Amino acid sequence: MMIVMSPQATPEQIDHVIARIQEEGFTPHRSDGKDHTVIGCVGHVNVDAVDPRQFELLPGVSQVVRISVPYKLSSRTFKPADTVIDAGRGVKIGGPEVVLMAGPCTIESRDQVEAIAPLVKAAGAKVMRGGAFKPRTSPYSFQGMGEEGLRFLHEAAARHGLLVVSEVMDRNQIGMMLEYVDILQVGARNMQNFDLLKELGRVDVPILLKRGLSATIEELLLAAEYICAGGNSQVILCERGIRTFERATRNTLDLTVLPLLREWTHLPVLVDPAHAAGIARIIPPLARAAIAAGADGVAVEVHLDPKAARSDPEQALLPGELASVVADARVLAAVTGRRLHARPGLEQTAEVVR
Amino acid sequence: MMIVMSPQATPEQIDHVIARIQEEGFTPHRSDGKDHTVIGCVGHVNVDAVDPRQFELLPGVSQVVRISVPYKLSSRTFKPADTVIDAGRGVKIGGPEVVLMAGPCTIESRDQVEAIAPLVKAAGAKVMRGGAFKPRTSPYSFQGMGEEGLRFLHEAAARHGLLVVSEVMDRNQIGMMLEYVDILQVGARNMQNFDLLKELGRVDVPILLKRGLSATIEELLLAAEYICAGGNSQVILCERGIRTFERATRNTLDLTVLPLLREWTHLPVLVDPAHAAGIARIIPPLARAAIAAGADGVAVEVHLDPKAARSDPEQALLPGELASVVADARVLAAVTGRRLHARPGLEQTAEVVR
Amino acid sequence: MMIVMSPQATPEQIDHVIARIQEEGFTPHRSDGKDHTVIGCVGHVNVDAVDPRQFELLPGVSQVVRISVPYKLSSRTFKPADTVIDAGRGVKIGGPEVVLMAGPCTIESRDQVEAIAPLVKAAGAKVMRGGAFKPRTSPYSFQGMGEEGLRFLHEAAARHGLLVVSEVMDRNQIGMMLEYVDILQVGARNMQNFDLLKELGRVDVPILLKRGLSATIEELLLAAEYICAGGNSQVILCERGIRTFERATRNTLDLTVLPLLREWTHLPVLVDPAHAAGIARIIPPLARAAIAAGADGVAVEVHLDPKAARSDPEQALLPGELASVVADARVLAAVTGRRLHARPGLEQTAEVVR
Amino acid sequence: MMIVMSPQATPEQIDHVIARIQEEGFTPHRSDGKDHTVIGCVGHVNVDAVDPRQFELLPGVSQVVRISVPYKLSSRTFKPADTVIDAGRGVKIGGPEVVLMAGPCTIESRDQVEAIAPLVKAAGAKVMRGGAFKPRTSPYSFQGMGEEGLRFLHEAAARHGLLVVSEVMDRNQIGMMLEYVDILQVGARNMQNFDLLKELGRVDVPILLKRGLSATIEELLLAAEYICAGGNSQVILCERGIRTFERATRNTLDLTVLPLLREWTHLPVLVDPAHAAGIARIIPPLARAAIAAGADGVAVEVHLDPKAARSDPEQALLPGELASVVADARVLAAVTGRRLHARPGLEQTAEVVR
Repeated sequence: MMIVMSPQATPEQIDHVIARIQEEGFTPHRSDGKDHTVIGCVGHVNVDAVDPRQFELLPGVSQVVRISVPYKLSSRTFKPADTVIDAGRGVKIGGPEVVLMAGPCTIESRDQVEAIAPLVKAAGAKVMRGGAFKPRTSPYSFQGMGEEGLRFLHEAAARHGLLVVSEVMDRNQIGMMLEYVDILQVGARNMQNFDLLKELGRVDVPILLKRGLSATIEELLLAAEYICAGGNSQVILCERGIRTFERATRNTLDLTVLPLLREWTHLPVLVDPAHAAGIARIIPPLARAAIAAGADGVAVEVHLDPKAARSDPEQALLPGELASVVADARVLAAVTGRRLHARPGLEQTAEVVR
Repeated sequence: MMIVMSPQATPEQIDHVIARIQEEGFTPHRSDGKDHTVIGCVGHVNVDAVDPRQFELLPGVSQVVRISVPYKLSSRTFKPADTVIDAGRGVKIGGPEVVLMAGPCTIESRDQVEAIAPLVKAAGAKVMRGGAFKPRTSPYSFQGMGEEGLRFLHEAAARHGLLVVSEVMDRNQIGMMLEYVDILQVGARNMQNFDLLKELGRVDVPILLKRGLSATIEELLLAAEYICAGGNSQVILCERGIRTFERATRNTLDLTVLPLLREWTHLPVLVDPAHAAGIARIIPPLARAAIAAGADGVAVEVHLDPKAARSDPEQALLPGELASVVADARVLAAVTGRRLHARPGLEQTAEVVR
Repeated sequence: MMIVMSPQATPEQIDHVIARIQEEGFTPHRSDGKDHTVIGCVGHVNVDAVDPRQFELLPGVSQVVRISVPYKLSSRTFKPADTVIDAGRGVKIGGPEVVLMAGPCTIESRDQVEAIAPLVKAAGAKVMRGGAFKPRTSPYSFQGMGEEGLRFLHEAAARHGLLVVSEVMDRNQIGMMLEYVDILQVGARNMQNFDLLKELGRVDVPILLKRGLSATIEELLLAAEYICAGGNSQVILCERGIRTFERATRNTLDLTVLPLLREWTHLPVLVDPAHAAGIARIIPPLARAAIAAGADGVAVEVHLDPKAARSDPEQALLPGELASVVADARVLAAVTGRRLHARPGLEQTAEVVR
Repeated sequence: MMIVMSPQATPEQIDHVIARIQEEGFTPHRSDGKDHTVIGCVGHVNVDAVDPRQFELLPGVSQVVRISVPYKLSSRTFKPADTVIDAGRGVKIGGPEVVLMAGPCTIESRDQVEAIAPLVKAAGAKVMRGGAFKPRTSPYSFQGMGEEGLRFLHEAAARHGLLVVSEVMDRNQIGMMLEYVDILQVGARNMQNFDLLKELGRVDVPILLKRGLSATIEELLLAAEYICAGGNSQVILCERGIRTFERATRNTLDLTVLPLLREWTHLPVLVDPAHAAGIARIIPPLARAAIAAGADGVAVEVHLDPKAARSDPEQALLPGELASVVADARVLAAVTGRRLHARPGLEQTAEVVR
């Protein structure tokens, strides 16, 4: 932390700031410039316990500059090597393989998930997704099938050797969900539901943590820090689009931060392009771009008949479109030094129709 | 709902869309333009049960235009008269009086709230605020005193005839909090915590609902709709700043939407300028502007010694600054046809020092 | 400028950075912290000639922190006293009086401006506005009357003792425009048209500089700096709304920065609420809020028959609405220690109809 | 255009709207719903001459919905086939080949461009870039070499059979620049400098039009429309990052709109990742992502010694990094059915050091 005094600061004000720094347990390093005196604060045993903003209020202070990043356990400095998360059944996220997660946006019936599961498997996905609790903007929209849906999803996935990921919306649901799912997902709207994050820190399954609509990547890492600080370091970060002024797309997929996240954190990063695009036909190019930018995996929605889906129908791929994404992804993963295990020949057999 | 066909749509595609509209229970009204055929959908008994986006997927459809607003109980159309919420002890929010809420950001000790309560009362505030559960971006920041803090706040406020408002972060806290608070606050990060909102719909106290950092006002009204739909129509909306590209201020206070909210909804609207400003000395002009723009009330943070506060110290007013805000607010309220009951002469006796 | 080394920086890298700092003419001040070494750069004769970002590329550097603000002539540090601009006919902008500018968005005919001028005068405005060159998003929209329109505007304003402000879009227009206008306006889209700004630095009339749709206030001050650095320090800053995710209003009027601008710069600040609102009926509350937040003036659009206007008809006030704004503004100005010279009784005689 | 009446609209108001629609030359189509009456406006000969917003002001109108897109010549509807721009020397932009543009951000000396030109050529680039007029946020930053720089760039490029692209900042520069450059670039800050755009409509060289920092893609297409409407349809659109709340990167590269632009317009689309990234080491993954998302070309900055560059040094690749981008781009282009002509073996010979 460095404290920059204003050009008008008096000697008394500078002395007062130095005294306060010492009271807080820092050793001050003073440096007098042409316009500004700068006071560095070094040597504190526990810098997190000190709120740098309190110094902004002292008379004569112009700005306080934070030097350390506010997250720790999730930082590359703390753990230089990539975290590879073993999600079960040999599925490793963050390693050399680009992991594909696919499935319906919302679980609608046993027939639906049973029909989709073999297609998800055939496409090369390792994890099947499907929502049982849906965070819907309107109270009048379909809110999900709940536990019954999770049971259908679990059974269908198990039949094909797939793992299951599904969204948890409230900490009271965690215990029940662990019977059915292998990865718990935190939705964008809950990224800063700190009570939920704390509870997930006490659980021993991977957490797929989606970036909030207006969360900076520093805030995303601080949300991950809540989980890690609780004792669960199996956090998979997920970029899914941020809110900007552009209205042509629902959200703006922020692939720009992907290479930065690679530097800042050891945690794996997935990309979910569906909600950014909001339109199924632009999902395949975005999935390709995500892999080219270095994503550890991609999550897509797939549907037998998107037009009849009960939520976000316009964001789901048809099975043939999924196959095409997978075929391209194999090549793209190779460019970035990764690999993607898709069943050879899928793309030839699947019909690409919309 | 109106469905706009693309210029390339075939007669078969148009017929197919019309058939689907009829299947969903609408009566189609076709209108053929130079480039576009437009099909109006009228007469449905329950328009909310139909997801307009499913029509976007039909071949030949260019866009689907929603006509009705998606919220109901919170709309002016549903209830033309202003909602005036009686929060207890004769305090009415949304009526002719501009209501002032004040108190510390975070409850830190019994001494702190006991010292602040008489100043809050003297300034003319009717409601005392103070956080016992704090949503902190970093897991290493102070997380609040919990129930003990609420008891201190409740006792100090009661001693001066003030109501109490405090933030609820999780639905498991509601029952306990009702013993201490008169108004339950939903923080910006929880605006779309739908499980919490549903639970608050079953409670019989006013809810102060803060706008999310990247929530549109339509989404704010839909969040209010969750509470109203559950049976609790005592919702006070609160503008507290949105996230924009501007970095000089922490958030951008969006007073632009205030007159629009007045038209769209019958619910009262408060403004909390502290988090937008992020700097105490610019809070007074923003509080003045909020009242001039027609806010039903203003919530501010006040502190005896902001420099020693354990959270957001830079956002708290000193008692003298609060008095100055109140003095101006009285005049401003008059301009907008409102009034503010402040104790005459307060501004003369309080020392305005910083 | 301070250079923060990364925790992994080697002693050689630190020495190299120090050597480069000295080459650039700075005296380095080294301070070794627990994780980071920080090197302060002091004593340079001309800090502007050095691009701090070049140091970001040196091996081992984590971040470079700029300490001085990048603008000078427009800063409070450079000139502590408020700049009061004498625009002619005794009109002073930035002084104790809140200045009102009013007129049509676009000059449409001699009759139009002749009819509006007396109303503008009667309302208490000192400056008449009207666009002759219009920056229109679509090439197919009306592009303005050009010089002929300026002549009409000038004649109508002169007849009532009003000053004239109009937008200049290209530096080739400046010479001609100076025959007709007293204040040259730079539109939001041209805020960073640096060739235009440089040319305006050589002119001896006040410049009304509108903030760009996505410009930070630091960028606005740097744009002003272009004009000041050219020799013309008569710059009036103008907040007119920024682009955010909110879609209910055209732009978000950023009154949050008003009190900050007051601290950072000595230049006067106007507010133009029309383009933020995009809807005439929400302009009056925003105009009131702007004055309450401390604006030095307000610019509004007025029209005899907004429904027939050729550009932005939905943003123009009717004469009666203007009178109501003026009446309120008089009171609000008093609250902020200002005054507004409106003709007494105007609000009684004008019809407020829409 | 469709006009939606409010639920409270009276029969007289509906009749009045219908009468106004007819006055404007439309044929009204009325459709009465449960809550809303909707009036479609069809059959107008010249819809662009009518401002739909004028109808928003009529009593009883709730909203006006535009159906047609406001741009024409640049739309796919107007011209279904891709536009392939022949820039000279056989370089075709928008065809099967992914075009690479490379060069220094700013022309600094004859030696500099002469040294870079052979590297640009060897990497497989077809166009050499370099700025002679620089739009700098601060008036105290280096503003470019002007015409002398263009002459150096032109000579160096010609020696290696490369085309030249450079930014034009003012319409007075166009004539002079045409002696030296093959493609005129419009910078992001000038995207809505309409006088400049109009002038470029009268020129017969390709225009590289960069998207403004806060411009929607509809506004980008309308800016292109200004050039096309003037008679020059050789417009190359360029995505270069938009301004969002995220502060970790300078801008957010909006690859999400790429597949949409492909649908909306026949014009080619380039991506310039340098200004979004703001950090050289994250440019290669973004360049890869851009090609994977379907860009017709990529523009990158390259520098022999970025640390000594006079503007934006942190955004320039070293020659070896450029070679690595090119190697990957060849494979990625193949995935999207394109090709990139790079000289084989370059990546082996170039040293990748930083």
